[in-house]
Amino acid sequence: MIVAVKKGADQKQIDNLLSWLRTQGIQPSLSVGSHQTVIGCIGDVSRIDIGLVRALDVVESVQRIQEPYKDANRKFHPEDTVVDCGGPKIGGGNFQTIAGPCSVESEEQITGIAKAVKASGASMLRGGAFKPRTSPYSFQGLGAEGIKMLAAAKKETGLPIVTEIMNIAHLPLFADVDVIQVGARNMQNFELLKELGHCGKPVLLKRGMANTLEELLMSAEYVMSGGNANVILCERGIRTFETATRNTIDLSVVPVLHHLSHLPVVIDPSHSTGASRLVEPLSVAAAAIGADGLIIEVHNDPAHAKCDGAQSQTPAMFDETMKKVRAVLPFACKDR
Amino acid sequence: MIVAVKKGADQKQIDNLLSWLRTQGIQPSLSVGSHQTVIGCIGDVSRIDIGLVRALDVVESVQRIQEPYKDANRKFHPEDTVVDCGGPKIGGGNFQTIAGPCSVESEEQITGIAKAVKASGASMLRGGAFKPRTSPYSFQGLGAEGIKMLAAAKKETGLPIVTEIMNIAHLPLFADVDVIQVGARNMQNFELLKELGHCGKPVLLKRGMANTLEELLMSAEYVMSGGNANVILCERGIRTFETATRNTIDLSVVPVLHHLSHLPVVIDPSHSTGASRLVEPLSVAAAAIGADGLIIEVHNDPAHAKCDGAQSQTPAMFDETMKKVRAVLPFACKDR
Amino acid sequence: MIVAVKKGADQKQIDNLLSWLRTQGIQPSLSVGSHQTVIGCIGDVSRIDIGLVRALDVVESVQRIQEPYKDANRKFHPEDTVVDCGGPKIGGGNFQTIAGPCSVESEEQITGIAKAVKASGASMLRGGAFKPRTSPYSFQGLGAEGIKMLAAAKKETGLPIVTEIMNIAHLPLFADVDVIQVGARNMQNFELLKELGHCGKPVLLKRGMANTLEELLMSAEYVMSGGNANVILCERGIRTFETATRNTIDLSVVPVLHHLSHLPVVIDPSHSTGASRLVEPLSVAAAAIGADGLIIEVHNDPAHAKCDGAQSQTPAMFDETMKKVRAVLPFACKDR
Amino acid sequence: MIVAVKKGADQKQIDNLLSWLRTQGIQPSLSVGSHQTVIGCIGDVSRIDIGLVRALDVVESVQRIQEPYKDANRKFHPEDTVVDCGGPKIGGGNFQTIAGPCSVESEEQITGIAKAVKASGASMLRGGAFKPRTSPYSFQGLGAEGIKMLAAAKKETGLPIVTEIMNIAHLPLFADVDVIQVGARNMQNFELLKELGHCGKPVLLKRGMANTLEELLMSAEYVMSGGNANVILCERGIRTFETATRNTIDLSVVPVLHHLSHLPVVIDPSHSTGASRLVEPLSVAAAAIGADGLIIEVHNDPAHAKCDGAQSQTPAMFDETMKKVRAVLPFACKDR
Repeated sequence: MIVAVKKGADQKQIDNLLSWLRTQGIQPSLSVGSHQTVIGCIGDVSRIDIGLVRALDVVESVQRIQEPYKDANRKFHPEDTVVDCGGPKIGGGNFQTIAGPCSVESEEQITGIAKAVKASGASMLRGGAFKPRTSPYSFQGLGAEGIKMLAAAKKETGLPIVTEIMNIAHLPLFADVDVIQVGARNMQNFELLKELGHCGKPVLLKRGMANTLEELLMSAEYVMSGGNANVILCERGIRTFETATRNTIDLSVVPVLHHLSHLPVVIDPSHSTGASRLVEPLSVAAAAIGADGLIIEVHNDPAHAKCDGAQSQTPAMFDETMKKVRAVLPFACKDR
Repeated sequence: MIVAVKKGADQKQIDNLLSWLRTQGIQPSLSVGSHQTVIGCIGDVSRIDIGLVRALDVVESVQRIQEPYKDANRKFHPEDTVVDCGGPKIGGGNFQTIAGPCSVESEEQITGIAKAVKASGASMLRGGAFKPRTSPYSFQGLGAEGIKMLAAAKKETGLPIVTEIMNIAHLPLFADVDVIQVGARNMQNFELLKELGHCGKPVLLKRGMANTLEELLMSAEYVMSGGNANVILCERGIRTFETATRNTIDLSVVPVLHHLSHLPVVIDPSHSTGASRLVEPLSVAAAAIGADGLIIEVHNDPAHAKCDGAQSQTPAMFDETMKKVRAVLPFACKDR
Repeated sequence: MIVAVKKGADQKQIDNLLSWLRTQGIQPSLSVGSHQTVIGCIGDVSRIDIGLVRALDVVESVQRIQEPYKDANRKFHPEDTVVDCGGPKIGGGNFQTIAGPCSVESEEQITGIAKAVKASGASMLRGGAFKPRTSPYSFQGLGAEGIKMLAAAKKETGLPIVTEIMNIAHLPLFADVDVIQVGARNMQNFELLKELGHCGKPVLLKRGMANTLEELLMSAEYVMSGGNANVILCERGIRTFETATRNTIDLSVVPVLHHLSHLPVVIDPSHSTGASRLVEPLSVAAAAIGADGLIIEVHNDPAHAKCDGAQSQTPAMFDETMKKVRAVLPFACKDR
Repeated sequence: MIVAVKKGADQKQIDNLLSWLRTQGIQPSLSVGSHQTVIGCIGDVSRIDIGLVRALDVVESVQRIQEPYKDANRKFHPEDTVVDCGGPKIGGGNFQTIAGPCSVESEEQITGIAKAVKASGASMLRGGAFKPRTSPYSFQGLGAEGIKMLAAAKKETGLPIVTEIMNIAHLPLFADVDVIQVGARNMQNFELLKELGHCGKPVLLKRGMANTLEELLMSAEYVMSGGNANVILCERGIRTFETATRNTIDLSVVPVLHHLSHLPVVIDPSHSTGASRLVEPLSVAAAAIGADGLIIEVHNDPAHAKCDGAQSQTPAMFDETMKKVRAVLPFACKDR
């Protein structure tokens, strides 16, 4: 952390600042120039409130240099993390596709879709049982019943299952679930993240729609600092002024996150675009740029889906997408 | 809801669309023009997934006309809602100021601040017991102990207390709390909102930093549709590209929300700006534009506050701010 | 400027970096700590490409400390600038209201509106002669003819006139214009700004809809460094994801800009909100927070205005707004 | 255009609205339902100010259905436009890479880079002669001298040249230029766009950093409606809250623009990311998603480049990128 001192500060003020910094567990190192006095702060600054330092009378500006996350930081863990998702491995060169409907609607539906997406090359099944909906009047998911249907589809097809948790109290219902998803709206539900740090299952953590990559990594840190190293990062687009697509997704987050962190990065082309027509091109681009996986909404009958039908591919579209993704994978960027 | 049909659609496709709309509980009314065919949809469209209609082959575009919220809608409730916050009333011409520290740190601290802000004119005491922090390594609040300290300060000063909930399981600890705050990061924690719909206490609902006003009202609807009509909306700024202030707050949300809804609207100048120096001017402007109240961070010793010191006013600054707010209130805009 | 050196950099790399910095006209001062080596850079860094320094192999991060603008910087010019707009003075405690139609449509129209707004208390007349329109098929303004009509209205009423320039080649047509407006879309039309640095007339510089306050001040610097110190800053809202208002305007830019710069700050409530109904409350709030002036669209017949009718007040609405603004002005925030 | 009438409007108000719409050259068609009355508007609504209609007392809401652009609209021009750039063709299946330095610095520099990028597979040379810089104190480009150097490099290598125009008055200097670039900051410099509509040269039109795709197409329409059909759209990222990259680029604009328009779409990975390390992965992804070309900054000595060195690739990096782009191109998405 670098603190620039205001022009005109007197020696007493600077001494007070230095001694205050020491009370915060920091070793300050003063550097006096003819135009600018700066203080370099060595030590663990992750617990310092930078806004507070900035507010001190004598301080001109403050800049943090080190990332505030540790467990998720590639600097302290140079090797790619490979997460075992109940069989399929993701990260470190292992690419996986998770597919399935927005919501589980019936055992027949979910098993039918599971078979279809497996045949096209998906290695995990997704399906919402607890659904976060903007309106209280929209379908809220089948809940515990939906998880049982997912488990039945898993038994039938062998595909591990991925589904979203919205409430810590539901955790016991997730015994058969292989990967627990934290949705974008809960990325900073810190109480939930803390609990998942002890749950022993891989966590698919979606980026919130107004959250920076640093905040995403801090939320991963909540899970990891609790003892659960199996975090999969998922980008699904952020909210901007553009309305031509549902969200705005910048695929360069893939190399950026790979540079900052050792965790695998999965792309969600369905929620990013909100349009089934755009899922294939974005999936192909995500594979090309070096993502570790995809999570795609597939529904046998999008026009009658209980939610998000507009962005769901049909099994036939998904099959075509998987062919194109497989074709491009050998040419994917591999830089870390 | 208005559905525009694609040019070149044949009669069979249009008939299918009309009959599909009827299965969704809608009465469609066809209007054929020489250049454009449109279908007006009468009935309760709040449960229809507009994205899905938009995805149908034969559909050019879809527009919703009615707001998707009912209980929060001024159209169905023309009178201002007045929320009783354990004594002080807010809304309908009643202006209240809630003040106190970001975090409760000790009984002495919170009681001292409570006395100070009461003397300056605050009518409610705020203070965080459970704190949502971006980093797992930051101070997380005193929890249940903090709520007891707030209750002691309430006993001492008579000020009703406002504090944030982050976990449904903590609800029993909030028995002495007068107004339960839902933070920006939990604005779409729908499980929490549903529970608060049954809790019988006023809810101060903060806008999420990437949420539209419509989504804020939909979250209010989650609480209200559960039976709790006592919702206070709180604007605390949204996230944009500008970095000169912590968030970007558009005060015109006050007249906009008053037009759309009958619920009271409170402004949080502390989190909006992130800078204690800006709290006074923004408070004065908020009062002038017709807000129903303010929620302001005040700390006796900002430089040693355990969180958000940078944006906390001292009691002396707060006293000055309250004088200016009171001076401007008689000239505040009153339009609804 | 503070440069943090990568951990593990050897002495040779650091020496190269120091000597490279010296070639850029900078005096570097090395500060070696046990965990972090930093280089403080004294001297004029305004010409250094910080992105370039950041890209050097040996560099971990770079932070600028000093603002990149000088002429517009309050640090080097502590007194408020007062701009003489052909009679009315703005800034330094002088509040002015500029009013008039989006477009000049006829001499009768502009003169009529000029008389009306003058009677209500406006001290300057605005009106577009050259109009920036998103569509080439929209009305583009009356051009030179429009400026003549403005001049006629000025002659009739004595109100100085403010109008927008879009093309350097038009400058000779602006001889009778008192204040030249640079629109939001041209805030970074640097060729235009450079010319206006020599024009000898006050410039009303509108913030671009995706520009930071720092960029706004850099654009002011383009005009000022050319020799024209008479710049009036104008905030008209930025573009965000929210669609309830046309743009998102954060009035805390007023105290922020007053802190950073000595230039007057004017608020445009009409373009900010896009809705005539919201102009009054935002105007009152702008006056309360300490703005130096307002620029408001007023049209005698908004429903038949050739552009932006939706946001234009009628003369009666404007008269009411002016009364409320005058009432709140004595209580306005005055901090700098 | 669909106009929804407010509940409770009486027949007289509706009749007035219908007759007003007719005066605007529109044929309104009334559709009265039991809950909602709507008016479908047939005819050319591109000149109607929708905000104005929305502001009428009797109007609840208004929605435009047809796109406001015509010449750029794929509906009226289903075939891909192929632009001849002085030899190389772009669009309709023709992929081209434009490469070169941010700024032209000397004839030796530009010719050297031209040879290098040609050897790696670039088919056009870029280089800035007139540079838009945020600061008036930054290097502003060599101007006319720079264009002469570009022409010399073209003569030496045969590569057509692409360079930016900032001022209409400079147009005569662009005689030897093959493709005229309009920068992001000038995307809505309508005076410039109008002139380029008559210039007879291909125009590379960059999206502004706060502009929607619809606005980009409207700016293309300015050029095209003037008689110049040779417009190449260029995406270079938009401005958001995320700071990990310079801008945020959503590659799904490629299929979206291809759907809306017949114009070719080029991606600028250099300005999008602001980091040379990210140029290769984004280039590969852009090729995979179906872009018609790339425009990449290449500098022989980025650490001494006069601007934007941080995002410039070296010739060796560019050579490697071109190999990966060529490898992925056969698998690129081709959907329109």
